[in-house]
Amino acid sequence: MPQLSPLAPAAFPDLPAIEGVRFAATAAGVRYKDRTDVMLALLDPGSTVAGVFTRSATRSAAVRDCEAKLGGDASGGAAILVNSGNSNAFTGRAGDESVRRICAAVARLADLPQERVFTASTGVIGERLPDDRITACLDTLKSGLSPDGIGMAARAIMTTDTFPKGATRTVEIDGQPVRIAGIAKGSGMIAPDMATMLVYIFTDARIAQPLLQEMLRDLTDRSFNCITVDGDTSTSDTLLLAATGRSAGITARGGPFEEALGAVMLDLAHQVVRDGEGATKFIEIAVTGADSDADARRVAMSVANSPLVKTAAAGEDPNWGRIVMAVGKAGARADRDRLSIRFGDILVAKDGWVAETYTEAEGAAYMKRPELRIGVDMGLGSGAATVWTCDLTHAYITINADYRS
Amino acid sequence: MPQLSPLAPAAFPDLPAIEGVRFAATAAGVRYKDRTDVMLALLDPGSTVAGVFTRSATRSAAVRDCEAKLGGDASGGAAILVNSGNSNAFTGRAGDESVRRICAAVARLADLPQERVFTASTGVIGERLPDDRITACLDTLKSGLSPDGIGMAARAIMTTDTFPKGATRTVEIDGQPVRIAGIAKGSGMIAPDMATMLVYIFTDARIAQPLLQEMLRDLTDRSFNCITVDGDTSTSDTLLLAATGRSAGITARGGPFEEALGAVMLDLAHQVVRDGEGATKFIEIAVTGADSDADARRVAMSVANSPLVKTAAAGEDPNWGRIVMAVGKAGARADRDRLSIRFGDILVAKDGWVAETYTEAEGAAYMKRPELRIGVDMGLGSGAATVWTCDLTHAYITINADYRS
Repeated sequence: MPQLSPLAPAAFPDLPAIEGVRFAATAAGVRYKDRTDVMLALLDPGSTVAGVFTRSATRSAAVRDCEAKLGGDASGGAAILVNSGNSNAFTGRAGDESVRRICAAVARLADLPQERVFTASTGVIGERLPDDRITACLDTLKSGLSPDGIGMAARAIMTTDTFPKGATRTVEIDGQPVRIAGIAKGSGMIAPDMATMLVYIFTDARIAQPLLQEMLRDLTDRSFNCITVDGDTSTSDTLLLAATGRSAGITARGGPFEEALGAVMLDLAHQVVRDGEGATKFIEIAVTGADSDADARRVAMSVANSPLVKTAAAGEDPNWGRIVMAVGKAGARADRDRLSIRFGDILVAKDGWVAETYTEAEGAAYMKRPELRIGVDMGLGSGAATVWTCDLTHAYITINADYRS
Repeated sequence: MPQLSPLAPAAFPDLPAIEGVRFAATAAGVRYKDRTDVMLALLDPGSTVAGVFTRSATRSAAVRDCEAKLGGDASGGAAILVNSGNSNAFTGRAGDESVRRICAAVARLADLPQERVFTASTGVIGERLPDDRITACLDTLKSGLSPDGIGMAARAIMTTDTFPKGATRTVEIDGQPVRIAGIAKGSGMIAPDMATMLVYIFTDARIAQPLLQEMLRDLTDRSFNCITVDGDTSTSDTLLLAATGRSAGITARGGPFEEALGAVMLDLAHQVVRDGEGATKFIEIAVTGADSDADARRVAMSVANSPLVKTAAAGEDPNWGRIVMAVGKAGARADRDRLSIRFGDILVAKDGWVAETYTEAEGAAYMKRPELRIGVDMGLGSGAATVWTCDLTHAYITINADYRS
């Protein structure tokens, strides 16, 4: 077992049951021994499902299948089946057939059309998925279904994660409590083999699929699309959001439900960064004053993905010159003489040079914190973006250089 | 002193004197103790100078100054002065003034217009350049000028380099030998603080500046723009090419001179990768069958910059799934079922899955070599590109996390 991330939350949160969805998990022995590795979520009729997926050109068979099924008829319920240990990615036609067999078996089990069965696989790449081990335990999964099983589901989808990830919010709408509960796995947006990101969020809100999809897409851009561990992109990233319709109805954008959903997604996204491979620092990069939001995002991601910024953080070195370098290479408009940089509230550099008030000692003391905030003001316009990352440590090298040996 | 890279060439090559250019180096004490840190190259009247520079938006004062001076009047000779130890980058107006003072002093020394003095600085960022230490030793430099001093110059511009870098070719044109000799410093396209790339190439060919510039730009795209250590881009990258005009004239593209110049540039580029921070593997990534050369380059650079591919190489793990991942995230068109991957001559994956003939043992044995070749055929068109990188090791983390502590 890998050591628990020093940035892990104190405990897995107490996730509420969401009326209209039940969960089960079991040990199918896909690859791991002595742990659960398959989870099933069954959604009652009337549930709408929205999703966003990796844009990788080599995305897995399950991802392609899910994408094609979004927006289908919600009247008959739906199922989500996920296995860990094998990603079924780059497994050719055999991979497509595994997805079809699993979907067919789950459809029979739950009396659903195959078009309402969503699957995902995470784990090693390029090895044939032993789908018979999964279909063999479907009856066990069905008999174990429970409204309280979401925590078990969170554990069953883990691969190199050092802790299960969950988040919840409840808002009152039209006098009714509307609950949102989500789980995630991932040690970053990294790796096709053991660290693909999977996220499943459930709510009892009543909401039409197109509105749910629109909300999900926009909120993803401000949460999961704002995190990076190493800039590598999974072949399997999948985020599904299911609404069972048992509580109040949502008919418009921008209200408290959307805000709460955004908070759940950001919470889960931050947990993925906190479990980034080898991470010892949680780093927020806030860019302001750019020509546009897109430029601000380009700069923020350039800083967040820079190996030199990330190794400096690992070494607790207030090496602000590397931030200047990462700003410069981002491809956004920058003017050296208007640029300022902050560590937390400490003004480090302004007007193209180190700030007169800044001392290296102050910067070095700040860098010892486990949570860092790097502020970059471009001094040009009103474009802004905030992203999150972790440091790049010896442990990252160890995990990834020695993974299969 | 850092340990010599295991990928270093056996020895510094024997570089020929280039008629019309003399070199000197001295210890100015900019930052380092007990070593040379300033080099001067003086070019006779009639020399043409071409250059390419970092595209960073936060490029240094010297880079901006050089860019503005290219293509000036060649009748009166030229000078190149380079210091190591301090990059004079992000030093505000004071940095611009340092450049002006150095250029003015060199111009006086060599009886040149300031517009013909090219400078570069490499080393720590954000600290004021003590330009008085450089100008104080100009007389010493002048008295030490020698046609045979290029090796000393190569040593004076080193920072974290573990070996000086030189390359040469001679071609016969119109019955005359035309010599090309170049030097470089850099541990990758990385870091604004201790690993900026500087390259100086000299030839006795007679060639007009516009043609020299055109040749240089195209050859750079096939050499220095095809290498990466960590994807970080220097604020100081500078490549100058000077032609003294003492040998045969070159009036057209595509001949043996251009071929030899390209070979010198590729040789130097490979040496920079071989001295990549912490490198233990020299990796060539050759992409073929892409929709276009641009797409092939996108895929090759995505593989070359992937931390997961690079850590797998460090761990000698034939983890071809990570190559699939890097192809997928590149943003180029890819079809899983047409993709094939090779390690050297070993066919690893084809038609969307692992090759029937491939064995993990064969892949593992291949990965033990110090020089690796990863072949990716997209199976789509005739676009091709080859790039070079090194692996990502614990030593990279150590060098960059602990650099200033």
